[in-house]
Amino acid sequence: MKQGVFITFEGNDGSGKTTVCKAVQEELIKMGYDCIYTREPGGSKIAESIRNILLDVNNTEMDDRTEALLYAASRRQHLKEVVLPALENKKIVLCDRFIDSSLAYQGIARGIGLKEVWDINQFAIDGCMPEKTLFLSVSVETGEKRMNLRGDLNRLDQEESSFHKDVRQGYETLVTMYPERIKVIDAEPCKEEVLKSAMECVLKVIKEYE
Amino acid sequence: MKQGVFITFEGNDGSGKTTVCKAVQEELIKMGYDCIYTREPGGSKIAESIRNILLDVNNTEMDDRTEALLYAASRRQHLKEVVLPALENKKIVLCDRFIDSSLAYQGIARGIGLKEVWDINQFAIDGCMPEKTLFLSVSVETGEKRMNLRGDLNRLDQEESSFHKDVRQGYETLVTMYPERIKVIDAEPCKEEVLKSAMECVLKVIKEYE
Repeated sequence: MKQGVFITFEGNDGSGKTTVCKAVQEELIKMGYDCIYTREPGGSKIAESIRNILLDVNNTEMDDRTEALLYAASRRQHLKEVVLPALENKKIVLCDRFIDSSLAYQGIARGIGLKEVWDINQFAIDGCMPEKTLFLSVSVETGEKRMNLRGDLNRLDQEESSFHKDVRQGYETLVTMYPERIKVIDAEPCKEEVLKSAMECVLKVIKEYE
Repeated sequence: MKQGVFITFEGNDGSGKTTVCKAVQEELIKMGYDCIYTREPGGSKIAESIRNILLDVNNTEMDDRTEALLYAASRRQHLKEVVLPALENKKIVLCDRFIDSSLAYQGIARGIGLKEVWDINQFAIDGCMPEKTLFLSVSVETGEKRMNLRGDLNRLDQEESSFHKDVRQGYETLVTMYPERIKVIDAEPCKEEVLKSAMECVLKVIKEYE
């Protein structure tokens, strides 16, 4: 690789993005690429402590803006400790959720506003935007079904169905705003088919940097 | 009171602002005012968890921008849970450190930039700026002397002398930028004298809202 490549995976809870993202990593490694899978907080001790506060089901008094700032803080620390060092070593970095999650969840679904959440996240990432983002698109019903099969729901998973609908609506807005960066992957079919679409998209991006 | 009044106290570590701020509260209560003293995280469980991450001396890998975002998050939660409810009840709120600490410490001394740190803090406080800010001004030498007498230094107290000089320089810049809001109090003299200057300033502000 001539340089590192930063690719993010986004989608509603239950969209299957973690499964697909890990499967893409496996395929790329088999093909001989130096590739890491990561997600916030991803092995950063500080980012992990922040995430514990965010996902604690007892933190019911959490303000929406506090939540947005904590996600941005965790993102910053994970970026510095995990993503940037890997990119400097010319690795492919597959990241499970990144800035678009904050835009969809806090900016739109929580109603804080896209511009406001974009700005604090630009402070956090300081110019390090992903080369490509795969949005794994499933209906809210499919997402909820898969999420319930998984069990062990955290503070955000436990939100009402209307919240997950707003999140989906948020992602659709982002797809319209960033058509070059965000590629929609239909994530309703079986895993093999979704993986095939994801791999096609990812390989096309990688080819540009080889 | 016709409405709540929000007054903040700022200064270098060891400037004596906590002592003076609490003494001002005591005086105001004696005079019959409904007045609270608070500081971030100030009894907010979530803000407290955030502060624990910030002040943990083991968190040496903390990035400067993460630090700034965490302070903004803790500020937001404390504002929502402690400051705003008190102001709504028409109380006088004396707050030990607020936005100017982030501007001086992270914006200037850490070198992130004033505008950047101002912006994430505006996201956090969402328009709730203090009516008046008292900057307790001491030389870096006096600050360090008082800080060492106190012992039990946290992650920020343990910074080099040059850092504390930059913080002081940062506050001086803020005084020039916000001459209407920030009142400089000479905090070199004995406690009684500093308290007298602080009380004069605070009573002048309160009179406007009675």
